[in-house]
Amino acid sequence: MKEQEKKRPWIKSVVPEMAPPSLSDNTADVDRLVKAIGKALPGKPVITDYLLIRDIASTLRRCEYRVEAVLFEEGDRWHLVGVLPVVEDHALFGLAVDLGSSTLVVRLLDLNTGESVDESSFHNPQIQIGTDILARIHFAAKDGGLQELQALVRNCLNREITALCEKHRIAPDRITGVAVAGNTTMTHLFLGLDPYWICREPYIPIINSPPLIKGKDLGLAVNPGAPVLVFPNVGSYFGGDLIAGILASGMNREKEVSLLVDVGTNAEVVIGNSEWLMACAGAAGPALEGGVADMGMMAGPGVIDKVTIDPETEAFHIRTIDNREPVGICGSGLIDLVAQLYLSGMIDLRGKFVSRRCGDRLVERDGIRDLVVVPPERSATGKALTLAQTDVDGLVRSKAAMFTILITLANTVNIPLMEIHRFFVAGTFGSYIDPRSAITVGMIPDLPLERYVSLGNTSLEGATLGLLSIDARKDISIIRDRVTYLELNVNQEFMNLFSAAKFIPHTEKSLFPSVKPHGMVDNPRPLQLESKGRSSADRGHGAGFQRPK
Amino acid sequence: MKEQEKKRPWIKSVVPEMAPPSLSDNTADVDRLVKAIGKALPGKPVITDYLLIRDIASTLRRCEYRVEAVLFEEGDRWHLVGVLPVVEDHALFGLAVDLGSSTLVVRLLDLNTGESVDESSFHNPQIQIGTDILARIHFAAKDGGLQELQALVRNCLNREITALCEKHRIAPDRITGVAVAGNTTMTHLFLGLDPYWICREPYIPIINSPPLIKGKDLGLAVNPGAPVLVFPNVGSYFGGDLIAGILASGMNREKEVSLLVDVGTNAEVVIGNSEWLMACAGAAGPALEGGVADMGMMAGPGVIDKVTIDPETEAFHIRTIDNREPVGICGSGLIDLVAQLYLSGMIDLRGKFVSRRCGDRLVERDGIRDLVVVPPERSATGKALTLAQTDVDGLVRSKAAMFTILITLANTVNIPLMEIHRFFVAGTFGSYIDPRSAITVGMIPDLPLERYVSLGNTSLEGATLGLLSIDARKDISIIRDRVTYLELNVNQEFMNLFSAAKFIPHTEKSLFPSVKPHGMVDNPRPLQLESKGRSSADRGHGAGFQRPK
Repeated sequence: MKEQEKKRPWIKSVVPEMAPPSLSDNTADVDRLVKAIGKALPGKPVITDYLLIRDIASTLRRCEYRVEAVLFEEGDRWHLVGVLPVVEDHALFGLAVDLGSSTLVVRLLDLNTGESVDESSFHNPQIQIGTDILARIHFAAKDGGLQELQALVRNCLNREITALCEKHRIAPDRITGVAVAGNTTMTHLFLGLDPYWICREPYIPIINSPPLIKGKDLGLAVNPGAPVLVFPNVGSYFGGDLIAGILASGMNREKEVSLLVDVGTNAEVVIGNSEWLMACAGAAGPALEGGVADMGMMAGPGVIDKVTIDPETEAFHIRTIDNREPVGICGSGLIDLVAQLYLSGMIDLRGKFVSRRCGDRLVERDGIRDLVVVPPERSATGKALTLAQTDVDGLVRSKAAMFTILITLANTVNIPLMEIHRFFVAGTFGSYIDPRSAITVGMIPDLPLERYVSLGNTSLEGATLGLLSIDARKDISIIRDRVTYLELNVNQEFMNLFSAAKFIPHTEKSLFPSVKPHGMVDNPRPLQLESKGRSSADRGHGAGFQRPK
Repeated sequence: MKEQEKKRPWIKSVVPEMAPPSLSDNTADVDRLVKAIGKALPGKPVITDYLLIRDIASTLRRCEYRVEAVLFEEGDRWHLVGVLPVVEDHALFGLAVDLGSSTLVVRLLDLNTGESVDESSFHNPQIQIGTDILARIHFAAKDGGLQELQALVRNCLNREITALCEKHRIAPDRITGVAVAGNTTMTHLFLGLDPYWICREPYIPIINSPPLIKGKDLGLAVNPGAPVLVFPNVGSYFGGDLIAGILASGMNREKEVSLLVDVGTNAEVVIGNSEWLMACAGAAGPALEGGVADMGMMAGPGVIDKVTIDPETEAFHIRTIDNREPVGICGSGLIDLVAQLYLSGMIDLRGKFVSRRCGDRLVERDGIRDLVVVPPERSATGKALTLAQTDVDGLVRSKAAMFTILITLANTVNIPLMEIHRFFVAGTFGSYIDPRSAITVGMIPDLPLERYVSLGNTSLEGATLGLLSIDARKDISIIRDRVTYLELNVNQEFMNLFSAAKFIPHTEKSLFPSVKPHGMVDNPRPLQLESKGRSSADRGHGAGFQRPK
C-alpha cells in the first residue's frame, strides 16, 4: 500500500451549505440536509438511517442549520453516519483494533491526516475464561457464555476508548469509524456469533465477510452511526488478522512472489503475488510455546531477549529487557540461545547437549540434563536459569514444523523457497527475532538477510489501512476472494519432510549454505531486522512466543 | 396503475439451491446463503444486515440448508429480510395501512398474487388525546407525549395484525412488507418524530422522504426485517395519503389533465397529468363538519345517507344505513338533502329557508328556524330530526370553500374546470356522495357525470400499490418530486371567488347549466357513482363528513 493511496478516505465530513427553512423553501429538515450534502458530494445518493433522523433534526435546529455531516462511502452510495456541531478543525477520528486472542491493541487515528494519534494495548480479558481458543469456544456454548465472552472484550475495549478520548479530549461522537482485524474465532466472539462449528468438521464459520456494522449495534463507545469494518476470513483457520497481514505487506500488489509468515498460536503462512495467493496454517506456534517449558516467559523486564556466545571464551553474553537482572527467556532469546549453542558446538545437529563442550554448565536434575544459562548468583530469582534438553527438543520440533510448512507450501505452488522475493515476518516473532539465528536453527530458509522484512503488528497495520483508504477496502475483499487455503494433510510426505527438518539446521545441509558452526567459519555477527531498542513498554505487543499463564 | 404492473413485486422469496458445507466447500453459512441467492436472483448484490446473521445461521442449520430467503429490492441491491423454513406454497404477506387521523385501515395482502386477503379498521386511538391534529401536536411536545402517541397507534396496529394473523393462520414472520400512507403529522407520530414545527411557520416537517425502515425498528408485529415503506410528503399540509391518492388515481400517468379531490379534515386538491402536478389544500372539510351541527353524525346504522323530495307530493324519501329508523344524517345525506331542498324551492339560492314552500315543516326553536326532516314519531330517538338554518349556512360556506379551492387551482394552471378530463373523488366523500347533488349545491363543477370517478380509500389503495409493485414505488418518488404545492393565500381575489360561490349553485349560473330547480325541468334522477349497497360494516371507512366526538 503506497502512501498516496491513504489519501482516498472513505469516511469523511462535510459542512453542507444550507439555508434555514423559509416559507419559500419548506423542504423538511432531513431532506434539506441530504440535498445540501448531495451538492457537496455529488454523484452518489446519500442514504440516511431511520434511527438517525430524530437526532439529525434536533442537531440541525440547535446548530441553526450549520453542521458537520459525517459520511462513509459504500459502493455507489454515501451513508450518513451522523451530524455533529461544527468544530474548527473538523477533526475526525477512527480506531484500528488488533483483536488478538492474548492481547488487544487499539490505535487512535486522525481520519483527516491518516496519522496515528495514540496506541494502547491490554490483555484480552477472555483469558480469564480460557487461555486457548478452544476453551473459549466451549464456554461460548454454555448458557449466556457467548454473551459473556462478547461483553468481556467489548467492555474492556470501551474502557480503553473512553480513556483515549479523555486523554486527547475527543468527544466519542468524533470517533466515526472502526476497523477490527482478528482471527476467525475472536471475530465471531466480537460479533456475538457462536463459534461452535469453527472447531467441528467441516470447520465452517457462521460468516466469512461481515457487512459493515454500526457502532451502536456492537455497543461500542463511539459515534452510534460509525461504520465498523470487520475484516473477513477465508475460513475457520485463516482469519481477518491474516487478511490484514497480507494487506499490510502489500504482497497482493507485487508481481514478484513473496511469502508472509505470522506465528501466533498457529503458524500461518501465505505465498503469492498480485495474481494468486495460497495460504496454510499449522501447529508450529503451540510447539514453540510448549518448548520453553522452564525458563520461558512473555517479554517483560528482565527477560532475556538476546544471547551470544563468545566463540573464543565461550562466555554467554546475555541481554535483557530494560537491562534488569535476568528472570527468564522469551522466544527470540531462546532461538538466539539455541543457535549460539549449536554454533559453539554445545548442542549437536540433533539438538542434543554435547557434554564435552558444555562442561560444567551441564547439570543433572531429576535425571534430566539442564544447561545453566544464568548462574543463581546472577539471576534475579536467586535460582539458576536453566535450559532443559526437553526445551531444546521442543524448539527443534517447532522449527521443524515451521520449516516443513514453508517447504510444503512452496512445493505446492512449485516455487523454490530460495526464489522468494520478499519474506515478510509479522508480529513479535518478526520484530524481535534475529533472522540470522532463525536461519541457523533451520527455522526459515537461508535467504539473503535483506529479503527478510519485519512488519510488526500487521493485524493492526492492516486494520489501519482498511480504515483510512478506500483502495485498501477494495483490496480486502480481493484478497479474501483470492486466497486459496491449503489444508495441511499430515500425510507420509509431510512426515518425511518434517523428519528431515528435525536436524540443525537440516538434514540436507545444502539448503543452509550460510550456516557454519564456529571453527568452520568466522563467527557471523548476529543481525537484527530493526535494531531499535526494546523496553518493557513493548510488552504485550504481538504474540510471538508468549506463554499463556 | 395497470393490473400487469402489479406483477413486478419488490418483495419476494426464493428457495436457493445450497449444498450443505463439506471439507471441500467450507464457505461460511451466511456467505453460502448469499452466494446461492445470487444464483437465484442474478445481477444485483445481496446485502445482509448484521443483526440478521445469528438467526440466519441457526435457521440454516435447523433446516439443513433448505430455507426460503425473503428479499426486497432497493435500487441496485437485494436486501435480505430474513430466512424462513420452507412452506409448501411459499406464501408471503404484506400489510397496506391507511394511517388516518380518525380511522386506521389495515389490508392484508398476499404478496405473491397481489390479492387482498382481508381488511380491518379501527378508530385511531390517538383520538383519546385529541380529536384534531393540533391537539396531538401539542401533546407530543409534552414529556413522553410523543412516545405515548406513537405507542398508542403501534399497539393498536399490532393487536390488529396479530388478530389478522391468527384468523388466517399466518406466522407473523411471513408478513414481510408493510406500506403506510398517512398525512404528514400522522406519519411523524407513527415514526416517533416530533411534529412540533409542522404547525409553526415556516411549517416544515422533520422529513419529507423517509428511508425504508425495518419492521423491528418500528416495533411492528411482523417479520423484524420486513421493509416498511412510509409514504413521503410534499410538506406539512400535503402528506403521504395524498401521494398515495395520486398514485391510486393514476393521474400521474395520463396525458389528459385530471383533478383529484380528497376531503378529510382539509379539502386537498391535485390537478395535473403525466408532466406536471399542482396541489393545494384548504379548510373546506372542517366547515363541512361544523355545518352539520345538530343531526349530523358519522355513518352508522340508522344514519340518513340519501334523501329525495318528491317533486309532486313534496314528500321526503329517506334512506338510512341498514334501513333502521333514522337517528341522524351523514355528509352525503346532508348534501342530498340541501340539493333536494333547493330543487324543490324550499331553500333559495342564498341557502335560506323559504317559509312559503316549507310550510309546517318549518318550526322555530329558541329563535332559530329548523326544518323538520324526520318527525318524532318516525325517528329512532323519539325526537324530531331537524335541520337548522345555521346548518344550511355552514354547508353553503363549505361548498363555497370547496368550489373556490377548485377554481383557484384551475385558474392558477389556466385550465378551465370544464376541461378536466377526469374528476377523481377520494374517500368516503367520493364513495357515498351523489355527484348530481354535489353539482346541484355548487360544490363541484358541472361536468358530465361520467367524468366523475370515485376511488374509495385512495390512501389504502396507494399503499397497496406501493407494497406490491416496483413501478409504483418509483412513481411515488416521481410524484413527490413533481408536485408543486400552491399556498392558498386568502387574498381579496380568493374572497371574491368565495363570495360568488356562496350561492346555490353559484352567482354565475352559466357555470352550472345542468342545475335547474323543479318546475323548470324534469326532476333529474339522482345518480350514485357506484350504486353498491351500504351497511354499518362500512362504518369508519374514510373520513368524509365525520364529526369529532
